[in-house]
Amino acid sequence: MSEQDPGFAKRETVEQVEEGGELAPKFDKDGLIPVVTTDFHSGEVLMHAYMNAEAMRKTIELGEAVYWSRSRQVLWHKGATSGLVQKVKQMLIDDDQDTVWLRVEVTGGASCHVGYRSCFYRQIPVGSDATIGADGAVKLTFTETDKVFDPKEVYGDAPNPTKL
Amino acid sequence: MSEQDPGFAKRETVEQVEEGGELAPKFDKDGLIPVVTTDFHSGEVLMHAYMNAEAMRKTIELGEAVYWSRSRQVLWHKGATSGLVQKVKQMLIDDDQDTVWLRVEVTGGASCHVGYRSCFYRQIPVGSDATIGADGAVKLTFTETDKVFDPKEVYGDAPNPTKL
Repeated sequence: MSEQDPGFAKRETVEQVEEGGELAPKFDKDGLIPVVTTDFHSGEVLMHAYMNAEAMRKTIELGEAVYWSRSRQVLWHKGATSGLVQKVKQMLIDDDQDTVWLRVEVTGGASCHVGYRSCFYRQIPVGSDATIGADGAVKLTFTETDKVFDPKEVYGDAPNPTKL
Repeated sequence: MSEQDPGFAKRETVEQVEEGGELAPKFDKDGLIPVVTTDFHSGEVLMHAYMNAEAMRKTIELGEAVYWSRSRQVLWHKGATSGLVQKVKQMLIDDDQDTVWLRVEVTGGASCHVGYRSCFYRQIPVGSDATIGADGAVKLTFTETDKVFDPKEVYGDAPNPTKL
């Protein structure tokens, strides 16, 4: 175990990482690991975010999702602003320990800053259903039409996290 | 639409990206977008991978998952080696269009190169269930115990993609 990363085993062999019983996460060159968050009950993907080492330790300790916000560059205890805390029912890690899967229960039922239940409210039709618009771009179709909350009421004048 | 990216709209406003009906994906500085792949029937997260622009176009065109392999630096039509093709039942994109969610059907039922059904076969107990081993590392528990296939039989001597 390295001094810098209490709680994490050192990555020494492929077998240890893939078949072992110790947490030995791989953080990328920015010190982050991607996190897929799904609704524990519906299985729906709610969001895709990142953790740094501290966010991962906090999540394990609290049993509530804590991410690293890349846009704000701060530790992000999900729900601190919106009240929509994510209670971790199950936390999993993949074969090479470079991705986390959180299965969560969300108070309030919405996870997306735009106001939809899931961040994934549009689909890209594929194969024979794929459609190209007049301007040459692939067309999307909406899978959710009603917002669960009004972002203006919840976030007020906080800057939109979407970057172009 | 930029000349380099046929099929993709140019990202011009937050509203267009979040509320619009055109595909305007955001690729990171390496030209990649993360992809969460779940089993269409069980909802289980099978894998987390990446697409570049070409992989995304191929996926839309074929209706089968095509990724960019970061370890091998090649376009990766999933199933070409193992036969475990991922048929895309639904392809979704998130609010700011920087993450893709693929809902797939997998012939054969396994997705992980280690031989398990899902790449996420270990959990990290959290909160009061969290456990630290004698060596100071967080302990994992296995959620799948039986492999669906023997990786040696399927992949032979191909190098293991896991990087330390």
